[in-house]
Amino acid sequence: MNKHEAAQLVTGGTSNWVKEEGEGGASVNIALCKYWGKRNEELNLPVTSSLSIGLPGLGAQTKVRPAARDAFFVNGTPMDSAAKAAARVFDFIRLFTREPVEVKTESTVPLAAGLASSASGFAALTKALNDGFGWNLSGRGLSILARLGSGSASRSVFDGFVRWQAGEREDGMDSFAEPLEAVWPDLRMGLLLLSDKAKPIGSREAMKRTVETSLLYRQWPARVKEDLAGLQEAVSRRDLTQLGRHAEQNALGMHATMLESWPPVMYWLPESVQAIHGVHALRESGVPVYFTMDAGPNVKLIFTAAHESAVRSAFPEVRIIAPFG
Amino acid sequence: MNKHEAAQLVTGGTSNWVKEEGEGGASVNIALCKYWGKRNEELNLPVTSSLSIGLPGLGAQTKVRPAARDAFFVNGTPMDSAAKAAARVFDFIRLFTREPVEVKTESTVPLAAGLASSASGFAALTKALNDGFGWNLSGRGLSILARLGSGSASRSVFDGFVRWQAGEREDGMDSFAEPLEAVWPDLRMGLLLLSDKAKPIGSREAMKRTVETSLLYRQWPARVKEDLAGLQEAVSRRDLTQLGRHAEQNALGMHATMLESWPPVMYWLPESVQAIHGVHALRESGVPVYFTMDAGPNVKLIFTAAHESAVRSAFPEVRIIAPFG
Repeated sequence: MNKHEAAQLVTGGTSNWVKEEGEGGASVNIALCKYWGKRNEELNLPVTSSLSIGLPGLGAQTKVRPAARDAFFVNGTPMDSAAKAAARVFDFIRLFTREPVEVKTESTVPLAAGLASSASGFAALTKALNDGFGWNLSGRGLSILARLGSGSASRSVFDGFVRWQAGEREDGMDSFAEPLEAVWPDLRMGLLLLSDKAKPIGSREAMKRTVETSLLYRQWPARVKEDLAGLQEAVSRRDLTQLGRHAEQNALGMHATMLESWPPVMYWLPESVQAIHGVHALRESGVPVYFTMDAGPNVKLIFTAAHESAVRSAFPEVRIIAPFG
Repeated sequence: MNKHEAAQLVTGGTSNWVKEEGEGGASVNIALCKYWGKRNEELNLPVTSSLSIGLPGLGAQTKVRPAARDAFFVNGTPMDSAAKAAARVFDFIRLFTREPVEVKTESTVPLAAGLASSASGFAALTKALNDGFGWNLSGRGLSILARLGSGSASRSVFDGFVRWQAGEREDGMDSFAEPLEAVWPDLRMGLLLLSDKAKPIGSREAMKRTVETSLLYRQWPARVKEDLAGLQEAVSRRDLTQLGRHAEQNALGMHATMLESWPPVMYWLPESVQAIHGVHALRESGVPVYFTMDAGPNVKLIFTAAHESAVRSAFPEVRIIAPFG
């Protein structure tokens, strides 16, 4: 099954505008258990399930409408149609319609925040298309479609804690995200922006190289299995120690598989290592703080409201976010 | 089988001085394929085989003699008998004799060079005891005994390229090192001393934690198998690219298993990551240079004589060693 066929299977193949303009919004998410490695490159089908938390207030609000020619605006600025971001957007839209479309996105994701804006971008775009074409899709359908644009976008369809089930089917129809019931008002995430330089290698390529060359990666599914179970239990019990431990070990495990790939993939900068040691020192001093990292140099802290001031003292540059408002 | 029984099995249980003074010398070694993880803590039996290269000129020359009381001198300075280093030395000597012994070691290993001085220390001590007690042991016997003092000391019994065979026996009598035939006059190692601070956790403890808590470690034997084969082929063909690749991937693989342990073991400092990126940048510029790292923050470069000046330009502080003189 190719991408186009998968898209048609979800939408029923209809692509007539039922509104002058479709609209949808979605937040970025931070994976506490990572999506690392695909079993199907074209359909973005993952090797393992994953679990994330949405960051409300950081994301995309997108409008789509029929137009004379393709056009893509981000925060009012027209994007060059030859640029990679625009190419990915219209490759995605072509799964549904051959007619030209105008896409206007308002993004509140700081471009240099070390947050994957493609997750919220494709989730918002999928919702906007669903609105414009009147597909009336369920969350599950939206998640499957968003996944075709960007794997982690499957999770950004929902807010709060979200689990993306890897699924087993060849066509990916069982590979979608679902929200967990739990909320955790005291939970805090702290963003440490350590570098806004372009990454030496894209995460898509890094993931591929890991799957193809890392021997340790063969144990990645075992790492994920343990962390997913631990994280879900931690969420249900609001146990920060357990949540943090599994998130941190999972992130370090992902970077471990990259480091052991060939050629090695090292996203870490000296500043990343300094921040990691800083987290460990703070933890040893008695403050329950943990971290996660995506495929990049930046570090994201995990803690609770009670320890905000301790975290802020140790990391004055931190940007603190309350995922549950 | 305990340590004492193993020692008796090798020496035949004799411990009568046949000389007024026994003497022996040994060099430090750098593992190109690491010893990481024990299958028997007491006998220092490794999970996997390993492969190293000796650094002539950096090591220990040791003299032992019967004395009125235990005494341990390093470069003329008496060591406190309660200190860890002296305790390990006399725990080792007690495997062979209850009589007090005076040990005098001249070490040319800079204490802060990030080189394991225990490897050359226990290998030299074993040779000195063999000389003093007249055991007339083969290299194999010396290697087994040295291993009881410190795992990697089993390799320092020999010079040049050395392979330590893990063995399978419970008593460890098939777990010893052997020299490879090959020499490689153009090979160079470059020592980058990045920190002389005490390590946050000893390698013995880090190894144990990795074996007990890292899931990725289950693939470590597969990593070693591939690297040992690749390294031996590289040595026989004097193929620096292949040697470097396997040494670097093996070292990163070892650190990967530590990082994914819990609590995570991170020996890297910001300076380590900077040096790693520096090696990669130099390699991308066309200079065939690779690195290895032990359980610490320091980086050891691997290259050939033809590229000494390029390496020295990129790393002015490097200390270059020719393992084959």
